[in-house]
Amino acid sequence: MSDLTDRLAQGLPAGAVVVDPDVTAAYSHDMAGFCAAGAPAVVVFPETVEQVQHVLRTATELRVPVVPQGARTGLSGAANAVEGCVVLSLVKLNRILEIDPVNRVAVVEPGVVNAELSRAVEEFGLCYPPDPSSWESCTIGGNIGTGAGGLCCVKYGVTSEYVLGLDVVLADGRLLSTGRRTAKGVAGYDLTRLLVGSEGTLGVVVRAVLSLRPAPAPQLALAAEFPSADTAGAAVCAVMEAGLTPSLMELMDAVSVRAVNELGQMGLPESTQALLLVAFDGPDREAGLARVAELCREAGATEVVPAEDQAESDLLLAARRLALPALDRLGTTMIDDVAVPRSRLAEMLNGVAVIAERHALTIGVVSHAGDGNTHPIVIFDGSDRDQTDRAQRAFDEIMALGLELGGTITGEHGVGLLKRDWLARELGPVALDLQRQLKAVFDPLGILNPGKMV
Amino acid sequence: MSDLTDRLAQGLPAGAVVVDPDVTAAYSHDMAGFCAAGAPAVVVFPETVEQVQHVLRTATELRVPVVPQGARTGLSGAANAVEGCVVLSLVKLNRILEIDPVNRVAVVEPGVVNAELSRAVEEFGLCYPPDPSSWESCTIGGNIGTGAGGLCCVKYGVTSEYVLGLDVVLADGRLLSTGRRTAKGVAGYDLTRLLVGSEGTLGVVVRAVLSLRPAPAPQLALAAEFPSADTAGAAVCAVMEAGLTPSLMELMDAVSVRAVNELGQMGLPESTQALLLVAFDGPDREAGLARVAELCREAGATEVVPAEDQAESDLLLAARRLALPALDRLGTTMIDDVAVPRSRLAEMLNGVAVIAERHALTIGVVSHAGDGNTHPIVIFDGSDRDQTDRAQRAFDEIMALGLELGGTITGEHGVGLLKRDWLARELGPVALDLQRQLKAVFDPLGILNPGKMV
Repeated sequence: MSDLTDRLAQGLPAGAVVVDPDVTAAYSHDMAGFCAAGAPAVVVFPETVEQVQHVLRTATELRVPVVPQGARTGLSGAANAVEGCVVLSLVKLNRILEIDPVNRVAVVEPGVVNAELSRAVEEFGLCYPPDPSSWESCTIGGNIGTGAGGLCCVKYGVTSEYVLGLDVVLADGRLLSTGRRTAKGVAGYDLTRLLVGSEGTLGVVVRAVLSLRPAPAPQLALAAEFPSADTAGAAVCAVMEAGLTPSLMELMDAVSVRAVNELGQMGLPESTQALLLVAFDGPDREAGLARVAELCREAGATEVVPAEDQAESDLLLAARRLALPALDRLGTTMIDDVAVPRSRLAEMLNGVAVIAERHALTIGVVSHAGDGNTHPIVIFDGSDRDQTDRAQRAFDEIMALGLELGGTITGEHGVGLLKRDWLARELGPVALDLQRQLKAVFDPLGILNPGKMV
Repeated sequence: MSDLTDRLAQGLPAGAVVVDPDVTAAYSHDMAGFCAAGAPAVVVFPETVEQVQHVLRTATELRVPVVPQGARTGLSGAANAVEGCVVLSLVKLNRILEIDPVNRVAVVEPGVVNAELSRAVEEFGLCYPPDPSSWESCTIGGNIGTGAGGLCCVKYGVTSEYVLGLDVVLADGRLLSTGRRTAKGVAGYDLTRLLVGSEGTLGVVVRAVLSLRPAPAPQLALAAEFPSADTAGAAVCAVMEAGLTPSLMELMDAVSVRAVNELGQMGLPESTQALLLVAFDGPDREAGLARVAELCREAGATEVVPAEDQAESDLLLAARRLALPALDRLGTTMIDDVAVPRSRLAEMLNGVAVIAERHALTIGVVSHAGDGNTHPIVIFDGSDRDQTDRAQRAFDEIMALGLELGGTITGEHGVGLLKRDWLARELGPVALDLQRQLKAVFDPLGILNPGKMV
């Protein structure tokens, strides 16, 4: 045993320090493609806050980098190992410590799986809205690290809206408590929000106080077929301008629709260029859907089909959730995540089509249309060097287009390794300078997830 | 003219540099009582971003402290002048630059008055929810600086939920842009939220991108009379546990009810110990009120009176808004702002009653009950040294009680000078250390609103 693993083992349970390279290799990366990953020296599985502190203290003493990990479902390489690092897996810190229906908060450890929490709070008539595609396997700690979104955001917002307070182990092993468990509070700078989305570069979340909402009624959906991105984009704008608040507003292009039908035999209409799914979950959901149907027709929908019942509605939303795996089967993929003001959504989609044509590539696009958040998925043959180069160029041009349209290079997947070089372009020199200085305050030795984000 | 005013005048319009001590004295403090305030050397009124940059650059070169100010309606002394400082008034940067109903954002300068913005967006069927008591005069810049709340928060949250992006002039005059104008975005650390509530100690906000919501239906209210804080607190818990989402849930104690009746002849029921006002603004508002009425009776309400029509409902809410000025007439006041988990609200109120008795003082309490945010208002004779001492002790004991109950020393008014010593107690040494280091990153010379907050 090396000095590192020996020292780590002194403060961790038996079996919590893994060095077998066959095992540790599996912990070297998340689900992002095309991001460098080193070989970890060791993977540790602490079970308590004190054990996490021991790991960080040891790493600080020995100046070894630490890469915190949840379920490794991330799409930006933020959880990728650095050569010779300690991978700090939080999956065994996985207890729901408290669910408090009067104060509408849950207190959880970072390894709790999103879906587990969702089901646990459901019993109290509550919900935890953030619902990334990977919600059945991703962890709350990972959601906090990336500032995860999902399909719910058009009505319910993103992870950062739901984190009230955090316990965080700092790079030197000290325990920091931020925030509160009250509904309101303005005592001091908002360190909680600074930590959400910081991708494990500022500290390691070991406990979170989350805000919950009353569970809404089940969603009821409609599907509207459009002949173009322009008409679909106009419908999205009209719905938002009319003051409606759907609980979901998703757009699938023709490539995604076909892919979903192939994978799931969902029977989605293949003649459409843009399939808009809109749902409501409030007491006025029928009225909302009727008004949306009207606005879609006015905007140029060729067909508007409200779900006939709850089962059909659920099926529509399940079809949407199938889009990413369905597209993934078509080849090697690069998944982008550009958000633009929703008024520029059609321009974004048309621009992506131009990029696809320019590089002779297939790009399927699914969008959280209500948020202007597009996921263009570049599909190519990864064994073909030329196609891979073109795919990379297309991927970059999509981000450049997003910035031109007043958007951001990442709506919800994060920066990680994948978009680190692009971050500087979005932030500009003043913000980047401050961000780097903030990083240095939390992690003066630079051992926490080095090379990620800033 | 001194070197300072001379240099300032070089980059500011005629009349924008005021040194007349009769005038500058008015700019030496906000509305907090019992906070030290120095005499400003000069008050400046820039009208453009470039002029603000000029002021900060000059202050940095000459090492002169700068105190940013909005409408000075704050209650924590955060806008109080430091001896010999430049008071940087943002009231002339007061343009609404854009209202965009499709993307539901407004772009505003910091001197825009909250009510002006509210009325301007109303024309588009939109609303900007944060509604502090001073909303008719306070500025958006001040709201951002303090992280202001209001009556809306139980349903709509606080200022930080509505700030998407900021332009900020840093201490050295550089212009920082943070955040985005898209619905979602996770590119880099969340500097926007770090700046909200930072009381002008990290930078000077010169432009804000705000998120708007569709305007809800008018609120419909009921009033419920309770014989004790315990029964009223139980009703609040029952309403929240039942999964209801009122748009307002306010509690007035007997002292506040009497004071409001005296000032406004409102005819509120004076026999009650605790008057709970609950309102809904959704499509299900009648159903919500009916269910609340039932829960209030079950919890021990002696009387539940739904407003008979919109006018009566509006009158009830106007009566609540009168509470602070009404209490203020009864003597010298110290306004506290302690938030506790709403399940501990009754304990908090009972504890405040014990503190009042112990010090033989009158303490009126109005609460944003749904948020557990109490405003105990200590009333005393400011010309009586002994009473003033007792009032200060009572004020402190209220904060200590809030912390004991798992709460915070400030729900929405901020730290400023008033609670600076208490902030250390709430944050603990690790968080305080980090907060001070963050301050040093933004303001290495310590010229921005020195002595406030951390």
